[in-house]
Amino acid sequence: MARAGSVGARVRGPETEGEPVPQRLLSVATKLFAEQGFETTSVQQIVDAAGVTKGAMYHYFGSKDDLLYEIYARVLRVQTARMESAADSSEPVEKRLHAVAADVVATTAANLDDTVIFFRSMHLLHPDKKAEVRAERRRYHERVRRLIEEGQQSGVFRSDKSADLVVDFFFGAVHHLGTWFRQDGELTGEQVGENFADLLLASLRP
Amino acid sequence: MARAGSVGARVRGPETEGEPVPQRLLSVATKLFAEQGFETTSVQQIVDAAGVTKGAMYHYFGSKDDLLYEIYARVLRVQTARMESAADSSEPVEKRLHAVAADVVATTAANLDDTVIFFRSMHLLHPDKKAEVRAERRRYHERVRRLIEEGQQSGVFRSDKSADLVVDFFFGAVHHLGTWFRQDGELTGEQVGENFADLLLASLRP
Repeated sequence: MARAGSVGARVRGPETEGEPVPQRLLSVATKLFAEQGFETTSVQQIVDAAGVTKGAMYHYFGSKDDLLYEIYARVLRVQTARMESAADSSEPVEKRLHAVAADVVATTAANLDDTVIFFRSMHLLHPDKKAEVRAERRRYHERVRRLIEEGQQSGVFRSDKSADLVVDFFFGAVHHLGTWFRQDGELTGEQVGENFADLLLASLRP
Repeated sequence: MARAGSVGARVRGPETEGEPVPQRLLSVATKLFAEQGFETTSVQQIVDAAGVTKGAMYHYFGSKDDLLYEIYARVLRVQTARMESAADSSEPVEKRLHAVAADVVATTAANLDDTVIFFRSMHLLHPDKKAEVRAERRRYHERVRRLIEEGQQSGVFRSDKSADLVVDFFFGAVHHLGTWFRQDGELTGEQVGENFADLLLASLRP
């Protein structure tokens, strides 16, 4: 569950004991997809590991696709809510963009498994599901793009780089955290977030 | 084949006709892995599509793993050679870093399928192969890190961000080109490279 207000909000805890059935299914599916891949994990393995029946699973999720979709969608929902609250605050635009950038790195780092699994296997999702999650992420990126344009219009940010390209530049760095970030590494997710946000803001200086 | 001197060097052509057997096998494997995934593609499908026998394939590649490895390794070899030539030139360090950054974006964009397939499936590689390609990429990143440190020591780049973190920041953006870059999009790979290099250099201004 998201802990409102904490910086690196984890969407789920490391344990599944006592969790409601849908959360438990998502937790074991994440673990199995991470260990053995999405394609080679069967619905039977998931329900066995969660200790529920197939009937119970299909009550909440229509398919294995739905689980993969939801693993990422719930992280994205938390990130979107936090991003909107930071983007719509009354701070100056450069502070708002810095807060948004630092937060998306910290929340991605705190839920790294979900992001890694999703980006690794999203090409296997049913086209409808893929389109849905892409649209949700586009809405997220779109809000960040408008924030950059707001800063460009007010002269706080350079205007010679398209805001679209800056969004792709920055979110590449975010989505790729999974290849190198370690929870027990030298820097915490929050520290990486502050550093990445500093670099982004510096790259936008007029 | 790499066209020495061209900016967005393609490691291979779009056609397989008349190519030597190893290149032909790599071309059809790339296509099949992209279309139907690495796991679900069989060696039989690859040799059928390439029009060669299994014996011919095993003459060049020990396994399906070797094909996946080589798909990325040959791009990385071209990128490393180009990077080293730019990094070791007599230009000022900020120009050398700009050239390196712009080139790795352009060459990644020109060989996007190979990069996408590799990052999607590298977790399925045999641990030895995975360690090997990781070591090769680490050597690449290591040279770029030293370039950043050179600029930090001479005061051309800011020193308050670790060169390691800057490398992770920038290469995240590079490795993630596959999720949004299109060959028929608004900007060419070379143009995206120039823009990304500009942003990187700006982020490093003292």
